[in-house]
This record gives sequence, structure tokens and C-alpha cells, in this order.
Amino acid sequence: MADQASNKAYIDYPPPLTPEQEEYLVQTVKNWTIEHGLTVRPSTAIVPKETNPKNVLATNAPVTLFPSPFPKACFELARSIQPVYNELYASVASDEQWLEEIMRELIEVDDFLANLWKIHLSVKEEGYVQDLSLGMFRSDYMAHIAEHAPPSLKQVEFNTISSSFGGLACLVAQMHTHLATFPSPKHSVAYPMHPLFATSSGDSSIHTIGHPPPNEAVATLAAGLATAHAAYGPSRSEPQLPTCIIFLVQDNERNIFDQLALSTHLDKHHHVPSFRLPTSKILAYTSIPSKDSNPCRPLIYTPPSSPSTPFEVTVVYFRALYAPTEYNTSTSWAARHHLERSAAIKCPSILLHLSGSKKVQQVLTSQPPDTDHLKAFLPTHSASVLQNLRSTFAPQYSLSAPTSEALGELEGIRLALSAETAANHVLKPQREGGGNNTYRTNIPPFLNSIPKSQWKQYILMELIRPPTAAKNTVLRSDGRVVSGNVISELGIFGTCLWRNTPGETRPEILHNTEGGYLLRTKGKDSDEGGVAAGFSSLDSLILYEEY
Amino acid sequence: MADQASNKAYIDYPPPLTPEQEEYLVQTVKNWTIEHGLTVRPSTAIVPKETNPKNVLATNAPVTLFPSPFPKACFELARSIQPVYNELYASVASDEQWLEEIMRELIEVDDFLANLWKIHLSVKEEGYVQDLSLGMFRSDYMAHIAEHAPPSLKQVEFNTISSSFGGLACLVAQMHTHLATFPSPKHSVAYPMHPLFATSSGDSSIHTIGHPPPNEAVATLAAGLATAHAAYGPSRSEPQLPTCIIFLVQDNERNIFDQLALSTHLDKHHHVPSFRLPTSKILAYTSIPSKDSNPCRPLIYTPPSSPSTPFEVTVVYFRALYAPTEYNTSTSWAARHHLERSAAIKCPSILLHLSGSKKVQQVLTSQPPDTDHLKAFLPTHSASVLQNLRSTFAPQYSLSAPTSEALGELEGIRLALSAETAANHVLKPQREGGGNNTYRTNIPPFLNSIPKSQWKQYILMELIRPPTAAKNTVLRSDGRVVSGNVISELGIFGTCLWRNTPGETRPEILHNTEGGYLLRTKGKDSDEGGVAAGFSSLDSLILYEEY
Repeated sequence: MADQASNKAYIDYPPPLTPEQEEYLVQTVKNWTIEHGLTVRPSTAIVPKETNPKNVLATNAPVTLFPSPFPKACFELARSIQPVYNELYASVASDEQWLEEIMRELIEVDDFLANLWKIHLSVKEEGYVQDLSLGMFRSDYMAHIAEHAPPSLKQVEFNTISSSFGGLACLVAQMHTHLATFPSPKHSVAYPMHPLFATSSGDSSIHTIGHPPPNEAVATLAAGLATAHAAYGPSRSEPQLPTCIIFLVQDNERNIFDQLALSTHLDKHHHVPSFRLPTSKILAYTSIPSKDSNPCRPLIYTPPSSPSTPFEVTVVYFRALYAPTEYNTSTSWAARHHLERSAAIKCPSILLHLSGSKKVQQVLTSQPPDTDHLKAFLPTHSASVLQNLRSTFAPQYSLSAPTSEALGELEGIRLALSAETAANHVLKPQREGGGNNTYRTNIPPFLNSIPKSQWKQYILMELIRPPTAAKNTVLRSDGRVVSGNVISELGIFGTCLWRNTPGETRPEILHNTEGGYLLRTKGKDSDEGGVAAGFSSLDSLILYEEY
Repeated sequence: MADQASNKAYIDYPPPLTPEQEEYLVQTVKNWTIEHGLTVRPSTAIVPKETNPKNVLATNAPVTLFPSPFPKACFELARSIQPVYNELYASVASDEQWLEEIMRELIEVDDFLANLWKIHLSVKEEGYVQDLSLGMFRSDYMAHIAEHAPPSLKQVEFNTISSSFGGLACLVAQMHTHLATFPSPKHSVAYPMHPLFATSSGDSSIHTIGHPPPNEAVATLAAGLATAHAAYGPSRSEPQLPTCIIFLVQDNERNIFDQLALSTHLDKHHHVPSFRLPTSKILAYTSIPSKDSNPCRPLIYTPPSSPSTPFEVTVVYFRALYAPTEYNTSTSWAARHHLERSAAIKCPSILLHLSGSKKVQQVLTSQPPDTDHLKAFLPTHSASVLQNLRSTFAPQYSLSAPTSEALGELEGIRLALSAETAANHVLKPQREGGGNNTYRTNIPPFLNSIPKSQWKQYILMELIRPPTAAKNTVLRSDGRVVSGNVISELGIFGTCLWRNTPGETRPEILHNTEGGYLLRTKGKDSDEGGVAAGFSSLDSLILYEEY
């Protein structure tokens, strides 16, 4: 199906390795990763608990040995529209009424979303004491190859909570750059000669700079946190307390070094202290003074190692509590409520968390003659900017209709039930953590196996067609080296800080930046990703232009 | 015996920890080490080979949780005399005749030293083609506590080959500084309040800056290599080749991240490429052109991963081949000979390697009425400088005499055979890798159990008496936390590049620097050290002054 001409950059890449070349490259990557903290804690599948009772061991994050080619124009488009996407989601999260309408049906059937919504309503009733919100976003895309057209950029999802891998992605780009340019940009001892690495010579119809572009994810994300920290202003406690940022984390996080890259940068470059708080300890180590003693509701963090020096929390940065499975203790929801009602700036607030649901993404793709939500949320942007944004939407369809009869008239239902058209689609559950996606011709039998009343819980999305010839080689966390056809997903990071004024549905944007990227690469035969789970690998990119 | 007043800085240190404090501190150290590459490859005692078949795992280097107190005056003395020590050993290595005389007796009984000497003679006969030598030194000391006197500095040994741990020692100093000053220098959440951490308040009779001094070991050592690289000058090959430095390493080095800190710094700050060459591959990957094709004998390194791009080696930096046990293959000695006759600058040359033997150290301590070697080797230095150097010598005694009768007249023999005086001494074998030291009252029975003809193979050294109250807590590489009385050894790094002119016994010093330190701390009950072996830990220091 795909136009082979558009796959040219992927053919004969990566270059084949002699055994000596592979040994040098793999050994160099094994050492570079540990030297620079491009690491994860190993899973118990790699190291049994009894071998590592004190949890001291580390291993390389799963990484590709080579950067993957990516169309330069797509990368630049993704970067250029990131601030617009940031503003779009700030606007969505600021329009409670719109969100409620869009989510209403879903909230009825999804306990997780319902509980989040309830917390929002409860805090709203008590009165929010913080009008600032911080978004640390990652917009995920694939390069889409269609016949007789240049590659285009299609959005997979937009993350409004726990957007991860900025820390490790920076390191991968540094590592691939080192491998491509050591001892000199003209000739690498780690990579064999290849047109994609050459700065000038080689196939003149493809142009690259020979190594990955710099990755500013850590600086961008840390600056977002530092900006929010500064915007919080002075302590609201009496007497005033020193302030800090809280990284809210899972109890047994294996991807901890990705998070530490941010907190270390925050400390070193912004002199903002941060502490890691496991979700199970929220209620033990943080408190909010009673209304009578301090109506401002500052969030007080008491470090267990230093109980005599409490801190006031300016920003709660969620690297946890994004999935339903994390709310598994009797106090999980109370803890989330506790944080939401505090004066700390939440990254994200409940409304911003909800704005990242797949349903919102699907509704935003609608365009005239349906309501043009994009234009409504981004009134100050030109038609061409909105068209750029819209060009990144893959067609999506709701499977929800007012009546069972009306269902049959939906375009999404028609596309999903025909084997021929389903072959070009993926069926995604709308609920968070709602299970796996269903692909292609598995869609009609799957839908027919469940009650029609449940169809509305799914969204049908046209499949993105990434380059078919893409290949790479991966060093897994257990040290095994695996080569094959791959699919890559590009994430662009951005941060946004805004203020909401009561009665006003438009946010006042105070800070809006783009910077840094993630490339995640997975084997083509595994349709589901997730670097931490070991299914996919951290990658960087070689931007190419074809002439 | 020790003066308790001089132990004041060590009493009640480190401060006791609550369980919450210990948990926070240990967890922070476990994470900091991996994030920053303060790591080692685990031994098979920690992770069995079958769990880690691809050798990807890493763990923290053994580190102390707190920096150890160290007398500021001793530290400053050690730093101030390092350039003089550098020059001393450059001078010793430049005086072949003197060295031969000192070593003659030892060479007769020690195959290892004999083989090294033979290589030197063989290359001398062929003619050396490189008149530059590089020393990367580490002078090791202890603080010595005597009655009614301030602490003094006593030298343990002077390393002329494979002086290690500069890379990791820098990281330990950074880590302890972070722990002592986060979130603010006035109050740490990791360390409880203690006078040694306070910048001003507390016990006014002890003064510190509250955290370790900066450690410049990596910058110093990398600059030494870079200076030698530059001094080598242009390629001597025809046609000219790109140049590089070789890190000569052991095949299964676990302390690799210490070495990588230097090569990474070399690349990043000096743009000098370096490659790791395992000793088993010297003859496979390096070559010297035949005399007819190029009499300059450039050492050519052919990277196995890139055989079409050979490099000319400017400096061979030995992080291997220092111990007799490493010369265990049929080609080990041929490989060492091959390197010595090449045009590469050796760090160290054979003569410099031999200059680091214990026998040389012992002879240098002799003073009038015996020959004053110090004055002879350092003719341009003032008496007070030489006195400073001499003040760091612990009394040492040769157990060698021309005849068996004369043996009995030696002071060393008298001190060693009496239980009372032996109690204050250590007996060290002179041969390299010659076995363990014998301590205190074990010395007389040990000497009596071996033939008198072997006594000359040992040196008797007065024991240094470190502070008796010193305590610390260690995080081992297996994650266990151990507390107790400790002994610390301070190493000061220095580099020296010099030129030898034929017929001239004085070196022409081109570069002579001091910078960076190592503190190694071991449990008091283990008389033998060695961080890599797991017996001792990497530490940094809190310099104190007492009033």
C-alpha cells in the first residue's frame, strides 16, 4: 500500500554490522547507559527478588542501537503546533461546562472518570483556592505514509498527565549523537558508513545532518515546573514556610531515573527543591490546616527524615495516579481529593486530567458541518494554523447514538462492521485503563460479541500507516539484542501555565513552551507499546529531507 | 595511646539516624549513585553469572553515607607537596643507574621485577624512540595521631601505575555535598544537625565549611593525558594517521565507570579520542611498522569495529598490567615489550613502574648519616620543602644485610623480632603482588617460620595510628548497610610529563600538576583494603580545624 518512494530513507537502514562492529556497538551502549544514568531498575523477570533484596541493581533502559529516520517536515510541523496544542488543552480544561457535556455519557459507565468528576464537583462546591494550573504535555504522533504524497504527521494521543520519558529521551539523543560522531563527525567507529550519517556525500537525494537534533526535554519540563513554582508566590502559611515541589510517584517505580533527571535539573539550574512522595504516603506526610487556622489551604509536606522542617508545596507534579489500577487502597480517592482542594498548583488538575481522555480527542476532530470546536477553543489563531493542527488528526468516529436504531446510521459503525473497511482501523476503549485495543479484521467479530449498549464505550480510529521498511536493532534491559521491522512514535513535549478566572471560560495563558522530543520504537508485530513494560524501546531520530 | 583531644572531631560523628532518616538517606544514595554513574559492575558474589549472562547490570560502588572528618592542615600539606613528589618520582625514574642499584637484590629473587627490567634493557639496547614519560600519580596517606601533638600526615604508598578511583571519588564528593546541602546549606533533610555540617554555629572549637571540598581529580587526570597527547606532536606514520590515546584495561574490569569518567572528560573537554584496549588484545589490535618501513616505531591501533581507519597511539595509559597475576598468558610479556619499544608515551614507562616499588619508597626515607637521596633528587628545592616531604615518611626498615651475621645488627631486625616493638609495626613483602601484610605481634613468629635468606624480601614499617574514634556507615554494593569504627586513607592525585635526554639523569619537567583526592574508608578490623574487592568504601572528607 505504502509508496515505496517515500520509504527510501528506510531502505538498507540501519547498515549491517560485522560481529566485531556489533560487539563494539553493544558494549559501548551497555557502558554509556550506565555511565550516564540512562537506566531503569530491572524487573523481577530479569533479576529475581531474592537476588536483589535491597533493590540496588540497575540496568540499561531498552534502547535502539541506531537513531530512526523521521521526515524532517513532520518533525518541524509537530514542534510548530505544540504551543497551539498546549493552548487548546488549557482551553478545554478551562471550560467545565463543555467538558461535562462531552464526558457525561462516559461518566455514567466509567467509575474512574465518575470519581474524578465527583472530586472536582466537591472541591468546586467548597471553592477552589488555586486559580493556576500547570500542564506538562506530550503530544504523540506517527509519520503516515500515503500513496503519491509526502509523509504526513498523525496524532496518536495527547497526554495531559504523567507525560514521561523526557529525562531518558534526552540521554538517548546524546548517546546516538556520540555514537554517530565519535571520534569525528566525518567518521564514526561505532556506526558503519551510511548516507543517513554522512554530512554531505552519499545519496544526494536524501539530506540529513548526520545525527539526532539536540533534545531539550529536561530543560523544557524543569522550566515549566520552576515557572509554576515561582508563580505560586510566597508561602501562605503563618509563619511562612520554605517551599518545595512534590513529585508524586508510584511506590515501586522502575522508571525512577527518568524522573530524577527532572528533579536534579530543577535543583541544579533553578535552585528549586523537590521531594518524591509515594502515593501511599500522601495522607501521612502532607496536611492542610483547618479552615479556621488558615483558609488558604496551603499543602504542608513534612519530610519523614526531617519532621522539624515542614515545607509548603507549590506544585504537585503527578507521575502517578493516572490509571484506575492505581486507586487500589481505601484512601486513594481521599488522597486525590486532599491534593485537589489544596492551594498547591496541580499538574494536572482533575479537569486537565479529564481533558486528556480519548473521548475529548475524538470530539475535537469534528469539523463543519458539525461544531468546529477547534475554532471555538482557539479564537485568536488563523485558519492556516488551525488547518495545520487539523492536518494531524487521524479520522475518528464515535460509536454512540441516542437510540439503537440511530446506531446503524453512524459512519463509525458502518466502517467498523465491514471487514473491508475495518481492516484499516483500530477500535479503542474510551475508559482509562479499559483494556487493549482491537485491530483491523478483529473489530467486527469483537463488536458482535458484546452488547450493542456497550459500543458507545469505544472509539474507532483510522489506522496510521507508518513506513513499512523501517528497521532497527534494540538492546533490551536483559542485554539481549533484537533486530527487525519497527514502528516509531514521536512525542513532542510542551508546558503551559494558565490562570482561570471565576465565570470566565477562557484561560489566561502565562507560560507556553515547546521543547524536547521522545521517539519510542517497537517491534512491528506488537501492536501495543510501553517502554517501561519492555515492549518498546527508547530511540532518537535522524531527520531526513528527500529531494 | 592516642590523644583524645585530637579525636574530638570524631566523637559523636556521624550523627545517629532515626529509622526514617536512615531510610531516606540510604534510598537517596542508592538512587544518586545510579543516576550519576557512581557505579561498578556487580561481582558474581552479588549477582550470579547465570542471572546476568550479558553483563548488563550495575550497582552502586561501595560508599560511605557520610563524609569522614580529616584534619585540614594535613590535607593542605598533602596537596602542597604533591608537585614535589611528582618531581621526585620523575627524577627516580630518570636515573636508571640508581634504580638498578636499589633494585638489584630484589630483581634476583623476583621474577616479575626481573622481567620488567629485562624489557627495559632490551628496549634500551634497541634504542628508545620516545623521550617523553607521563606519570599519573596518587600519593596515599593516613592522618597520624600522636600524644600531645597535632595530627600529622604519614605516607602509606606512592602509586606510579594505574592510580585509580579519581573518577568515582569526584562523584562521591559531589554526592556528599548534595546530601549535606540539600535543600539548603543551612539545613539538610538527609543529614541530622551536627557541628561538622554547620557553617557557623555549633561547637566553636571546631571549624569546617560544612561539606567536602570540590574534587578536581577527573579534570586533573584528563588534563595530564591531554597534555601528553599534545606533546606527542604530529603523527609519525606515512601517510599520517589520526591520533588517539589507549586505555589499557583488564578483560573483566568491574571498576569500568571510574575509567570511563576520564575518557568521557577527555573527549568532551579536550576533544581527544581514546579507546579501551583489553590486555589480551594488545598484539591483535596494535602493531609497529618494521624498521625498514618506518624507524620511528609508531604504535598503530586498528579498531576492530572499524579496521579501515587505523589510529596512531600517542599515549598508552595503563589501567592494567600492574600486578604479576596479570601476566598469565604466553604473550603477556611480549605485549608489554611491544608497547615499551613503541613511540607511544607510556604512562608509565617500565622505569617509572619500577620506581613505585616499596623498596624505592623505603630507600627514599633514608637520611643523613645515610645518603640523603631526597636532596640528590630534588636539588632545586629548599630545605624546608624537603623537610615537609620528609615529615610524611613513616619510619621504614630494610631487612637486608650483606651477611647473615650482619642481619642481627640491623635496627629493623631488632624491632621486628621483639614482640614489644613489633606491636607497633607492619611487615610488607617487597615483591609486587607478593601476598598479604603481616601485622604487629604476628611478625616475630612469621619471620621465625621462614628461612633467614628470605627476610630481605620484606620491609618493616612503623604503623600509622589513625584516629581511634573514627566511625562511619557504609552502603555496600549488595545494598547492605554497615556501621562501625573505620580507618581512612587519603590519596592525592598528581600528573607529571617530562623529557629524558640521553646521558642526562635529570628529567626536564614539562607539566607538573596536583588536583583531586580520594578518601578510602575501611572497617577497622580489616587490615587490608581495596575498594574494588569490596573491603573498603569510597568516601570524601569534611576538613576540620581545631582551636
